[in-house]
Amino acid sequence: MFVARVTGSVVATQKVASMTGHKLLIVEPYRVDEKNRDRLVPTGRTFVVVDTLGAGLDEMVLVCQGSSARLTPETEKLPIDAVVIGLINTVDIGGREIFSSRELS
Amino acid sequence: MFVARVTGSVVATQKVASMTGHKLLIVEPYRVDEKNRDRLVPTGRTFVVVDTLGAGLDEMVLVCQGSSARLTPETEKLPIDAVVIGLINTVDIGGREIFSSRELS
Amino acid sequence: MFVARVTGSVVATQKVASMTGHKLLIVEPYRVDEKNRDRLVPTGRTFVVVDTLGAGLDEMVLVCQGSSARLTPETEKLPIDAVVIGLINTVDIGGREIFSSRELS
Amino acid sequence: MFVARVTGSVVATQKVASMTGHKLLIVEPYRVDEKNRDRLVPTGRTFVVVDTLGAGLDEMVLVCQGSSARLTPETEKLPIDAVVIGLINTVDIGGREIFSSRELS
Amino acid sequence: MFVARVTGSVVATQKVASMTGHKLLIVEPYRVDEKNRDRLVPTGRTFVVVDTLGAGLDEMVLVCQGSSARLTPETEKLPIDAVVIGLINTVDIGGREIFSSRELS
Repeated sequence: MFVARVTGSVVATQKVASMTGHKLLIVEPYRVDEKNRDRLVPTGRTFVVVDTLGAGLDEMVLVCQGSSARLTPETEKLPIDAVVIGLINTVDIGGREIFSSRELS
Repeated sequence: MFVARVTGSVVATQKVASMTGHKLLIVEPYRVDEKNRDRLVPTGRTFVVVDTLGAGLDEMVLVCQGSSARLTPETEKLPIDAVVIGLINTVDIGGREIFSSRELS
Repeated sequence: MFVARVTGSVVATQKVASMTGHKLLIVEPYRVDEKNRDRLVPTGRTFVVVDTLGAGLDEMVLVCQGSSARLTPETEKLPIDAVVIGLINTVDIGGREIFSSRELS
Repeated sequence: MFVARVTGSVVATQKVASMTGHKLLIVEPYRVDEKNRDRLVPTGRTFVVVDTLGAGLDEMVLVCQGSSARLTPETEKLPIDAVVIGLINTVDIGGREIFSSRELS
Repeated sequence: MFVARVTGSVVATQKVASMTGHKLLIVEPYRVDEKNRDRLVPTGRTFVVVDTLGAGLDEMVLVCQGSSARLTPETEKLPIDAVVIGLINTVDIGGREIFSSRELS
């Protein structure tokens, strides 16, 4: 899985029928800063993921890729390869909290 | 999933029998521009995908990769690893519309 | 899927029993040239794929990766992650033919 | 699979129900140093993995990716794409031990 | 699949129960040299794979990734994503032998 920030959303009216009603978010994966390991930094990559947890803009989420994206009750049998499986509260590195969702509010 | 522009097509007369009649498109993945996050920019990569939605040249589409590419009614049991699952109308980043299919017409 | 050129072959006498009799080709993925989008250029990467269509040296082929490589009649249940699913006749970009197999003969 | 060091952990209170109670670790993949092949060096990449073996901070672990991450008794049917399958004692390269978990204690 | 050289091994005493008795090798993927296409060169990447064929140190092997790594008799149902499926005798590029296992002895 990877840590990513919700940066936006996609609207596609014409789509595979089973995809109707599923929210599509744009996310950007983050990684631990290599220098001081004291913060998360953006990778510049762009993914589209299905969200069933109500993730908001700028929220940090946990994304699962591949066939396992179909292993949630709402995404079973969908033609998708990435899904949000958690809304991240905190990330700790080396025993130190380097991200908290409280920063966002 | 990823956002991609349809740039062309592939013709392969000699192929695995189950692939007969399936349209093969060339697409180029796009990502959100890192600088101002105000537009989509091409990545320079080349993928071949199956399309069942009638995507046109230059259209922006949503692509699903991996085993889930077989999870649409038309692609079940096909030896494919990528399929178009939606034709993109709009992409919003940070609450701002950075792509609209209306730009294409 | 991706477009690739057949550059060679691999011989492995000692192998998993089910692999006996399956032809192993070396292929190099190609991508559309970013500058003028008027030709296919090599990526420098090396993949080994199973071929059941009789692809010849230098031929341009369509390769499927992942679990779907097992979705052809000849490769069912094989421990493989890539298979040739088509021999490419032409590649069109922006309505213009940038590759034709006739160039090879 | 890949070799990775446990660098931290993730807390996500709001998540897909089946994920409750599963420990989420942050790991950084390592590779063999190209120059002298005498040590493991960090790659700078960040992955989140499920751990069922009790891996500790800084411990070197073996990570399995993809659908096979669901092939352990504790992770069956989970929407995950990476799991710790072993705690690494030693890594040998060219007949020489270049990593030992004893270094950590 | 990819071509890789066996560079070492991993020992992990504490592991998922089903992994007991399975040999874990460190391999480095190789690719065809882009310049003259007359030899295989190392990529600098590090993978851990399961071996059931008795590959020796420095031997060149064929590696299968993903769910198909479970499609050999010995690796069925294992939580693994990479397995050796062949010991490579020769690699031919453009009709010329650029690697032979005889070089190793």
